[in-house]
Amino acid sequence: MYKITPAENGLAAVPGFYCGATNVGMRPDKTQGDVAFIRSETPCDIAAVFTSNKFQAAPIKHFQRYPEGFQTDFILINAKNANAMTGEKGVEDIDTLMAALSSKVEIHNPLMSSTGVIGYRLPVEKIIAAFDMLNFTATDSDKAARAIMTTDQFKKELAYKVELGDGACFHIAAICKGAGMINPSMATMLCFIITDATIPKSDMDALLLDGAEHSFNRISVDGDTSTNDTAMLLSNQQSGTYDKAAFSEVLNRLMFELAMMILKDGEGANKLVSFEVKGARSDAEAQKASTALSNSLLVKTALFGEDPNWGRIASTIGASGISCDERKLTIHYDDLLIYSDTFRELDKEREAQAYTIMKKEQFKVSCDLGLGEGSYTSYGCDLSYEYVKINAEYRT
Amino acid sequence: MYKITPAENGLAAVPGFYCGATNVGMRPDKTQGDVAFIRSETPCDIAAVFTSNKFQAAPIKHFQRYPEGFQTDFILINAKNANAMTGEKGVEDIDTLMAALSSKVEIHNPLMSSTGVIGYRLPVEKIIAAFDMLNFTATDSDKAARAIMTTDQFKKELAYKVELGDGACFHIAAICKGAGMINPSMATMLCFIITDATIPKSDMDALLLDGAEHSFNRISVDGDTSTNDTAMLLSNQQSGTYDKAAFSEVLNRLMFELAMMILKDGEGANKLVSFEVKGARSDAEAQKASTALSNSLLVKTALFGEDPNWGRIASTIGASGISCDERKLTIHYDDLLIYSDTFRELDKEREAQAYTIMKKEQFKVSCDLGLGEGSYTSYGCDLSYEYVKINAEYRT
Repeated sequence: MYKITPAENGLAAVPGFYCGATNVGMRPDKTQGDVAFIRSETPCDIAAVFTSNKFQAAPIKHFQRYPEGFQTDFILINAKNANAMTGEKGVEDIDTLMAALSSKVEIHNPLMSSTGVIGYRLPVEKIIAAFDMLNFTATDSDKAARAIMTTDQFKKELAYKVELGDGACFHIAAICKGAGMINPSMATMLCFIITDATIPKSDMDALLLDGAEHSFNRISVDGDTSTNDTAMLLSNQQSGTYDKAAFSEVLNRLMFELAMMILKDGEGANKLVSFEVKGARSDAEAQKASTALSNSLLVKTALFGEDPNWGRIASTIGASGISCDERKLTIHYDDLLIYSDTFRELDKEREAQAYTIMKKEQFKVSCDLGLGEGSYTSYGCDLSYEYVKINAEYRT
Repeated sequence: MYKITPAENGLAAVPGFYCGATNVGMRPDKTQGDVAFIRSETPCDIAAVFTSNKFQAAPIKHFQRYPEGFQTDFILINAKNANAMTGEKGVEDIDTLMAALSSKVEIHNPLMSSTGVIGYRLPVEKIIAAFDMLNFTATDSDKAARAIMTTDQFKKELAYKVELGDGACFHIAAICKGAGMINPSMATMLCFIITDATIPKSDMDALLLDGAEHSFNRISVDGDTSTNDTAMLLSNQQSGTYDKAAFSEVLNRLMFELAMMILKDGEGANKLVSFEVKGARSDAEAQKASTALSNSLLVKTALFGEDPNWGRIASTIGASGISCDERKLTIHYDDLLIYSDTFRELDKEREAQAYTIMKKEQFKVSCDLGLGEGSYTSYGCDLSYEYVKINAEYRT
């Protein structure tokens, strides 16, 4: 038996970690930071998942130079510049930064993570000059969470305390950035999770992967994958306690909540819709159809228009390349049946009910293919004028 | 040697064919038809390519009931209703229509084609009542071309005359509908091509497929495929002349021009951009990257914003799942190099040149992967506020 309760102060909820941020001049609004750090008193085990984009950003290449199973006690994070498509120079810039940093604070195997525009070198001098402004024993999670934002409209920060009984407990906390479907340079999503649970390294790797599969990998980022996507889990092992079931549950909850925050912060998005596909020949086929739905421009614009046009749902499933049969398919919006073989054209009453559901900020589209046991749920948002505006105007 | 020249009067340029249209009340604007027909004096050979959507519309199922190699002399086409996801009843409705039609005009193996909203039965009574308003010996191609439009802003109609020397000649003509990235119910594209060339049936099949591969299959329809997509080639064989090279050239030209018309008529689109990918490991890899570019929301919004942000181009290629290496990649906008390994950040002058190119209505993005001989070009358009408006408001 264990008990999970929300904790205060974000990253500061986990003993043994420090965090903070400053503005080095990359972000015009000086009241918000653009460089943040997370530091641990002791070396941490690390699990990490990175983008599948072939053009991995320099910080990811830098990470991969460390040997398997290395430990770290420091992550430097910047916004406004992705340090991607910057070649070997991009990695050298990180080495230069870390060398300068090591004269200010003791660090072991430091990591870096970046988000922002692709194709520009980091302003190394500016960042080094700012190291004097950072207080490496601060616990300012709010400031760090805000410093890593790009088009995000609100900070994403969560913390939980897990009590295992007899006074034994551990903590987990995270900051995260990412705004809905797409971010500046392709849906960049950064997530830093820290814990004092005494968790085996093998569990860290497996549970982080599993958590990502049920959270960040299920939200619509329109099929694009950033050069910089990163989710990391760091443990300083300090609590002396661990329970796999409890850790798995709290990690999944934390990552899922962060993923939903990203969707709700969708660029110009007003609605959060879950797309459940069941009755597919396999989970893989259900995933294909569900992902097609949450990525479809036509479905997204119909959501924005609050139009209960189930034809777009059906057609997207039909075009997704999976096995399907229009006589066996059923479609529900929440609990309202809006398509089945024996029931096609919407009568006025049912259409009115469908409108009511579509006006909600959150609802479920559920499609049963009637062919097997495969199922999958992904999460998407609507596509509004505001989205086009944000993405047309970004950078310039 | 042969000579290809444009011909007047659309479908009427081909001897032996009739066409026309009327408004049966599905389209509120009574000055524009919603039901059109194409009729041949004599039975025609047919080649056809259909949507790959698993939920094929009723007219496609109806077509497929005919035996291999059948001939037809009549196509009925309607807008405003896709007759898709209408089950067996949808096919029965076509039979009912054709039975009624056969009492008005002699027809053999008649075909139907539909475009519009998914999930509603055809207004069979209304359509039958309108048969008396159709003049089956009319040659009103303009009216037919306009009747099949949905969100199209202009009619799509082309005709060519091909002179083979010594007075021998044949004709080819087409009407087509489709507006840019996406149409009402998923990018529906209908194209009807007629000819009097005495072309072998096997050439018809092969050349139509080849023509579609170089035209309609290369324009961005955002990865969605309609339940109704159809391209048909009918030949009445009347001219007594044929030349494979000439026919192939004129058919490809006609289909490519129609495809570009569809892109130019893109819902809310202002720019037509070709995405050439070369130097790929294989043509298939080049196609994957090129298609990813013409479908990418981030690329499309950058085009709309006229932002020379090559990072979005690079990141889309990196995410497309093909082999690539940032040290070997080069990117050009028209003739302007905007990315190479030795040349990354844009200087002011080059950025100004890039802006000038992006302000054009038509330009080329060319990416050389530097890895092999594979190449592919696809065609896309920008994504504007207008697109979202059209697709959010459609139907309601």
